[in-house]
Amino acid sequence: MKIRQTLLMELAQISGSLVFNQIHSNGIVNPSYRMRPQIVLFGDSITEQSFRSGGWAAALADTYSRKADVLVRGYGGYNTRWALFLLHHIFPMGSAMPLVAATIFFGANDAALLGRTGERQHVPVEEYKENLRRIVQHLKNCSPTVLVVLITPPPIDEHGRLEYARSLYGDKATKLPERTNEMTAVYAKHCVELAKELGLPSINLWSKMQETEGWQKKFLSDGLHLTAEGNAVVHEEVVKVFNEAGLSAPKMPYDFPHHSVIDGKNPEEAFRNLCTGV
Amino acid sequence: MKIRQTLLMELAQISGSLVFNQIHSNGIVNPSYRMRPQIVLFGDSITEQSFRSGGWAAALADTYSRKADVLVRGYGGYNTRWALFLLHHIFPMGSAMPLVAATIFFGANDAALLGRTGERQHVPVEEYKENLRRIVQHLKNCSPTVLVVLITPPPIDEHGRLEYARSLYGDKATKLPERTNEMTAVYAKHCVELAKELGLPSINLWSKMQETEGWQKKFLSDGLHLTAEGNAVVHEEVVKVFNEAGLSAPKMPYDFPHHSVIDGKNPEEAFRNLCTGV
Repeated sequence: MKIRQTLLMELAQISGSLVFNQIHSNGIVNPSYRMRPQIVLFGDSITEQSFRSGGWAAALADTYSRKADVLVRGYGGYNTRWALFLLHHIFPMGSAMPLVAATIFFGANDAALLGRTGERQHVPVEEYKENLRRIVQHLKNCSPTVLVVLITPPPIDEHGRLEYARSLYGDKATKLPERTNEMTAVYAKHCVELAKELGLPSINLWSKMQETEGWQKKFLSDGLHLTAEGNAVVHEEVVKVFNEAGLSAPKMPYDFPHHSVIDGKNPEEAFRNLCTGV
Repeated sequence: MKIRQTLLMELAQISGSLVFNQIHSNGIVNPSYRMRPQIVLFGDSITEQSFRSGGWAAALADTYSRKADVLVRGYGGYNTRWALFLLHHIFPMGSAMPLVAATIFFGANDAALLGRTGERQHVPVEEYKENLRRIVQHLKNCSPTVLVVLITPPPIDEHGRLEYARSLYGDKATKLPERTNEMTAVYAKHCVELAKELGLPSINLWSKMQETEGWQKKFLSDGLHLTAEGNAVVHEEVVKVFNEAGLSAPKMPYDFPHHSVIDGKNPEEAFRNLCTGV
């Protein structure tokens, strides 16, 4: 945590020193510039949809406004097995990407049952855990100080899933849910166990959501995906974990001066340390 | 437009070819990866607040989900004169940033009146226009194919501004609005003129919003900043202009395969062209 905090402060607070110098063919040396820290949300549809109205990525981007960029790397329908194919593309080794945190939020599809309509997406729970481990290891290889947070799949409202299928397919809809809450619990348990093994923070969304009465309709729109209130739970939990891990938005400096410190008659003074070439 | 479209398709569709090769000290050659195109929103508080609930950046990020990243570079209280100090830091020359579009959305602060409470932020309209020109030129120098869209400041509800001041300062609040709708019109006119001169698309938000009856309260929360409905207008207009300029989200390819084309028993096939090192 100390190392990450130091890195973060260095990344964000550097003022007047050159973060990157670039010399072009025309001989011009570019002025220094700071790269804003990045938070990447890697996951399935629940991550992919997180910029929708009321979504947790939008809320997180607002929480970290002028402090960090929130990039969504959500892939609807993906399980951890398929996520591995993207891993090196999304998080290339040796990238200059100033990654400070990542959420890994898979499992809803891995937990789809064999012999049901979602069979194609099923991944055995032991493999799910190992895939998560590989994702974490890759991220740590890319950036040893990155804060990695594991998020379990949300609980399943089986009745809601069947209702949703009926709304799509009518009488032809499946009568057997493709996911059960009980089976998803097993995946959630393995996710939390892995986080403990690796010394990472985790969010047990599966159990957290079920603490609230009426979670089935309050937090889930179709028995699986999140309502605005469900998104708010994820946002709140992620911010809590980030804060506890030393990545607190209020403590992070602005990338550039707040307008109130800029003197209208002498604005240069506020930007003195940026060495801009304007 | 043709060039931009071609670049975009190349950026996004490249499959199996190496976008970036990186050789590390350990001799490992990284697999290829694609950088997702970026859309940068550069402006003042109306841009800074655009990830808030119902905000236009969040809506845009959702529209371009899995197609492009939306990065907010909004600086509350800034005018174009101060924006110039940030320009080379936010858009460094020679950056590998795959910038495909940028919105430039200033003027609300430049148009603050001399002799009123916002005097410090005032920038003469001719200078505002020249500052915008410098911003556009810099972006074009960084990336000749980038789509640059100029957005005028929104209209001002003077009554709303005074009400807002009263809510903050009570009887001590100013009795004279620090901005007028009439003066903001002059800035909007110069913004649109510059766009015409430079052959760029623009959004005349000042006039667009006033086409709707009750725009004062419907679109503005405090006589200047946007309500969720005001944000929706900006989102709609930006998407329209992007579409007309050939940057249409539905026509842009997904960065990675849609889950429905992945064969559960043979997932490798769908990722064949990514040459991943997994």
